[in-house]
Amino acid sequence: MMHTDRLFPPDPATRTLARSLFEGVEHLPIVSPHGHTDPAWWGDNAPFGTATDLFVRPDHYVTRMLVSQGVPFEAFDGEPRKVWSLFARHYPLFAATPSRLWLDHAFSTVFGLTDRLREENADAFFDTITEALATPEFRPRALYDRFNIEVIATTDSPLDDLAHHQNAADSDWTGRVVPTYRPDSCVDPEFDGFRNNVIRLGELTGCDTARWQGYLEAHRRRRAFFASMGATATDHGHPTAATLDLSEGEASAVFQRVIRGHASPGDAETFRAQMLTEMARMSLDDGLVMQLHAGAMRNHHAGVHRRHGRDRGFDIPTRTDFVAGLRPLLNAVGMDPRLTLILFTLDESTYARELAPLAGAYPCLKLGPPWWFHDSFEGMMRFRGQVTETAGFANTAGFNDDTRALCSIPARHDVARRADCAFLAGLVTTHRLDEEEAFALAPRLATGLAREAYKL
Amino acid sequence: MMHTDRLFPPDPATRTLARSLFEGVEHLPIVSPHGHTDPAWWGDNAPFGTATDLFVRPDHYVTRMLVSQGVPFEAFDGEPRKVWSLFARHYPLFAATPSRLWLDHAFSTVFGLTDRLREENADAFFDTITEALATPEFRPRALYDRFNIEVIATTDSPLDDLAHHQNAADSDWTGRVVPTYRPDSCVDPEFDGFRNNVIRLGELTGCDTARWQGYLEAHRRRRAFFASMGATATDHGHPTAATLDLSEGEASAVFQRVIRGHASPGDAETFRAQMLTEMARMSLDDGLVMQLHAGAMRNHHAGVHRRHGRDRGFDIPTRTDFVAGLRPLLNAVGMDPRLTLILFTLDESTYARELAPLAGAYPCLKLGPPWWFHDSFEGMMRFRGQVTETAGFANTAGFNDDTRALCSIPARHDVARRADCAFLAGLVTTHRLDEEEAFALAPRLATGLAREAYKL
Amino acid sequence: MMHTDRLFPPDPATRTLARSLFEGVEHLPIVSPHGHTDPAWWGDNAPFGTATDLFVRPDHYVTRMLVSQGVPFEAFDGEPRKVWSLFARHYPLFAATPSRLWLDHAFSTVFGLTDRLREENADAFFDTITEALATPEFRPRALYDRFNIEVIATTDSPLDDLAHHQNAADSDWTGRVVPTYRPDSCVDPEFDGFRNNVIRLGELTGCDTARWQGYLEAHRRRRAFFASMGATATDHGHPTAATLDLSEGEASAVFQRVIRGHASPGDAETFRAQMLTEMARMSLDDGLVMQLHAGAMRNHHAGVHRRHGRDRGFDIPTRTDFVAGLRPLLNAVGMDPRLTLILFTLDESTYARELAPLAGAYPCLKLGPPWWFHDSFEGMMRFRGQVTETAGFANTAGFNDDTRALCSIPARHDVARRADCAFLAGLVTTHRLDEEEAFALAPRLATGLAREAYKL
Repeated sequence: MMHTDRLFPPDPATRTLARSLFEGVEHLPIVSPHGHTDPAWWGDNAPFGTATDLFVRPDHYVTRMLVSQGVPFEAFDGEPRKVWSLFARHYPLFAATPSRLWLDHAFSTVFGLTDRLREENADAFFDTITEALATPEFRPRALYDRFNIEVIATTDSPLDDLAHHQNAADSDWTGRVVPTYRPDSCVDPEFDGFRNNVIRLGELTGCDTARWQGYLEAHRRRRAFFASMGATATDHGHPTAATLDLSEGEASAVFQRVIRGHASPGDAETFRAQMLTEMARMSLDDGLVMQLHAGAMRNHHAGVHRRHGRDRGFDIPTRTDFVAGLRPLLNAVGMDPRLTLILFTLDESTYARELAPLAGAYPCLKLGPPWWFHDSFEGMMRFRGQVTETAGFANTAGFNDDTRALCSIPARHDVARRADCAFLAGLVTTHRLDEEEAFALAPRLATGLAREAYKL
Repeated sequence: MMHTDRLFPPDPATRTLARSLFEGVEHLPIVSPHGHTDPAWWGDNAPFGTATDLFVRPDHYVTRMLVSQGVPFEAFDGEPRKVWSLFARHYPLFAATPSRLWLDHAFSTVFGLTDRLREENADAFFDTITEALATPEFRPRALYDRFNIEVIATTDSPLDDLAHHQNAADSDWTGRVVPTYRPDSCVDPEFDGFRNNVIRLGELTGCDTARWQGYLEAHRRRRAFFASMGATATDHGHPTAATLDLSEGEASAVFQRVIRGHASPGDAETFRAQMLTEMARMSLDDGLVMQLHAGAMRNHHAGVHRRHGRDRGFDIPTRTDFVAGLRPLLNAVGMDPRLTLILFTLDESTYARELAPLAGAYPCLKLGPPWWFHDSFEGMMRFRGQVTETAGFANTAGFNDDTRALCSIPARHDVARRADCAFLAGLVTTHRLDEEEAFALAPRLATGLAREAYKL
Repeated sequence: MMHTDRLFPPDPATRTLARSLFEGVEHLPIVSPHGHTDPAWWGDNAPFGTATDLFVRPDHYVTRMLVSQGVPFEAFDGEPRKVWSLFARHYPLFAATPSRLWLDHAFSTVFGLTDRLREENADAFFDTITEALATPEFRPRALYDRFNIEVIATTDSPLDDLAHHQNAADSDWTGRVVPTYRPDSCVDPEFDGFRNNVIRLGELTGCDTARWQGYLEAHRRRRAFFASMGATATDHGHPTAATLDLSEGEASAVFQRVIRGHASPGDAETFRAQMLTEMARMSLDDGLVMQLHAGAMRNHHAGVHRRHGRDRGFDIPTRTDFVAGLRPLLNAVGMDPRLTLILFTLDESTYARELAPLAGAYPCLKLGPPWWFHDSFEGMMRFRGQVTETAGFANTAGFNDDTRALCSIPARHDVARRADCAFLAGLVTTHRLDEEEAFALAPRLATGLAREAYKL
């Protein structure tokens, strides 16, 4: 089911070289600098439950595809075995999607299930996976070890006490789990509970977060706490790439409006934009690498959001303007050698037009790997094909699996390594790169650039 | 001239598989759920006239290319043989364009002309084609039968009496020609004669189309009439993908302004946007599949429009925003299992960014095939390459030939089937799809998905 | 280091054909209708200085890449040999970029240096190149002859006296160097020194450039002077593709505001937009081919601009709207057979959506080759792949090297010819083009289309 040459170009010479390159990186450890695994897994190491709990319910790639073909969300709340059967019946929908590559890889390499999932074998799959998950070898930490993960970053609220991270560190387990400072809940005035979150931020830090300087100081303290717990990075999920560099007085005034609930239209965007520049300035001091994930319109369907919650596959990409958007931040701190800012986009039209030219000039900028809908073989080939000629390889930040699906992590790195080896092999057989250069680049793309960019 | 392996990838293994896949779909009947053939052809079955009347004058792909190289529009009004000679002299302009694939296919398979058209053989081509067209075997209904068409949809005004469809149905001919409800002339306040058209709509239906509810009821009645004549779909050609979901009072007010000629700037766009949502609501009740063709700036050159009319190759695509645009409609009715909305774009940058994520979530949405300028081999490969990983195959709607050029219909389906087989073969040889899956998918892409999506 | 089959597709049949096609065009003369070589080179024919003066300091592709990896701009001001060593140490950054193809080509074919540049051989490279540059064989005119250049266009201010062009013409050297009328400094109100430039334009022409008609007449006279010195083209570098066709009174009023320093916000854009249409009208009379390079946001980082000047790699592409932007100009003069307007974009998303449909309809329009960041193998393949099916080959304008780096000129034409041969070969092996057509097209793409489009 998982062909050893999968994703390699059909041309025999290119395929042979891609295979050789891949053999050199296939077994490198996994460096996972950005993702959404649940810290409780690492802190508590509790079992996962049933196959449905692991592979269906939490995976918005899976549920949205079934919903798109008429399955109601309610169907996922049913009896686990019945839900699994429903999933198996719809498995052909995933033909030629990354989800299928990830799921097949997990079924076969993690659970030894080498048939293709289908309605007829659904029960057997369900039993095998569910029984395995009850054993110690399939608890989170054991999977981490088995997957040869070297380090994994979670994504955490400033209000999180990082107790799970502490538990993991205090245990005799040797895994390395680092938090990431993701302050959207305390930075985005349109985030649910924003004003209460800022109050809570003040309580946690002893800062007067009703005042602009106190609010900024509170962030500095929480960032320092995160760094003390191993964090090397922050992350910012914004609807646009807008930044601003307001005067102290202007910034303070907009802060007062959003924090008191007197925001005018546009104030939320203004405040988010200003905060990106503030966060960049804090990075100059504390050395945390900054990530920006821009361009998702969240919760496109209000009813789905209201009835079924966030992250259900109804976040849709939008056009994103990095050139005008990032200009204020980059003019303020973009030439400072202390800053690293890693950019992610859902708008592929920006790869060649905006992101590669920016990253190929500004010393602070690096390009994150293809994100979300574009975290796929074709997406990766488009990224390398559109970015490399202007930005080279050194201005990219290696791979992120960016996932909450633990068993997909090896599969995702496998796809990325295969795609990069396919790309490098194509450069060699068209004589744009020497073979020895390709062999030197492959491990950098697999792990080296991520370690460097994220200071891991 | 028409190589049997045309459009198949050069890699031998991939080509062999593409050829095998194609052999399984090459002779399937043609399902043509959206197009612009003239209903009079099917009703009257009159002969076509000369080669020039069939292949040059009505084909805006052909005339615009000659115009772009300095041929004045007036030249097409000349003596038919002279016009044909002019066309033949310029035939090299079409090298590597879809028009050339379509024309060569028609010349060779329909008329047995297996040389490439050139100035030297222009007269021979003209005579062969023109003489053939005078025979019964080359009348429209005979060509329909010869082309192995199973069903063909026309595109019709709400004001049309569908007499040609009735004639075709009343005849002893067994072809299936269904109308499509395309209400732009009665929905778009900027359409020539809009206000008179709405009055006429009232006369035809006995509804008071000077009032908002009467106007809506008139549409309902005409849709029911179209459905009774075999229609399964509506179609909407809008400059943008904007939709709205206004209150009854707001909608009625903007209707009153546009119908009385008191429209403010923006009212036309507001009204069109609201009408898309109204039409979607009607589809919930009457089951007609809804199509949206968005994003053409019509009649870019005012003088060409004034002197030479519509559809002369001077309609130019524009950027289109489906994410914000469709949100009101989708929030209103997008999760209703009764709705099918098929989307077409001229802005390929929306494939991976907007359309695939939307269609991969909303149950009502399907993606129409590459449209117009993108109805080409490269365009199809970009579409599948950018859409499949997020939306899969099941959220696409099969192929449309979308043409007013009858003899190009087999050629267009031939190109689409070859492109899809090439795409599937590439998935198999890179081990992203099993060979048996590819053989199961090929006929779905050729005819099955179109039948399902359009309820044909 | 420079493989003879570089950039040709790996499929053996396609590669063999690409090689044959290339053999037919490899040694054709270079037609360079748009570029930025220094007229003083051709007028004075002075030696170039050191390797660093030739290859590092003036090349913003090179310096921006080093800056993007933390090298400060100041480092380029150091002792030439030290700067060269710094460049050599960072040479691996250029892996898989066009700069590397250009530099390797120049090192090997111009200077006989067939190793890859690296830190260890930096001194040897520096010495070989610097010593060669001191000899007569490496002065500009000798390189022109050696590169087999047939004609080269420079890009010049309306205020330039073209003395270097005159010197070159007066000498016994047979090279053909033609100026290009690039009036941005006298047309763009945001250009440094705009108002003084317009005064100077008046002094040079004896026209009253404080009045709208006098200002236009001054342009007419300078264009006539440029034409008398061999110019066949104008060039316009604008931030957007906006054009306008104002009444005489409106145009005169906005001219008065910008020239007196009373401009309102938007007046600069309005004036630039109007001037494109004025320039197009002048082209109807004097026959100069018009070029538009639209869409660069210049000097993205204010501090880099202030400290290090223009053209340092901090000009970033932006989204560009040609459809609405060009409409006023095209409505005014777009169907006039006397006009040629060659369009360049940094926004590849416009290729298939806007530029090919426009160029495939309007007789005046031709598409310039991939520009700047997109002047690369992948960029060229995207251009041909996205443009050809709608616009064909005849609506493209051949290749421009568009460079100020003399030694890269043969390399850039080499890349373009290889890319076009690779593209044509792929069309033949997928049976979309006959082999004899490909052999006829290859030299047109290499030189013929450029000669025709630019009337050279």
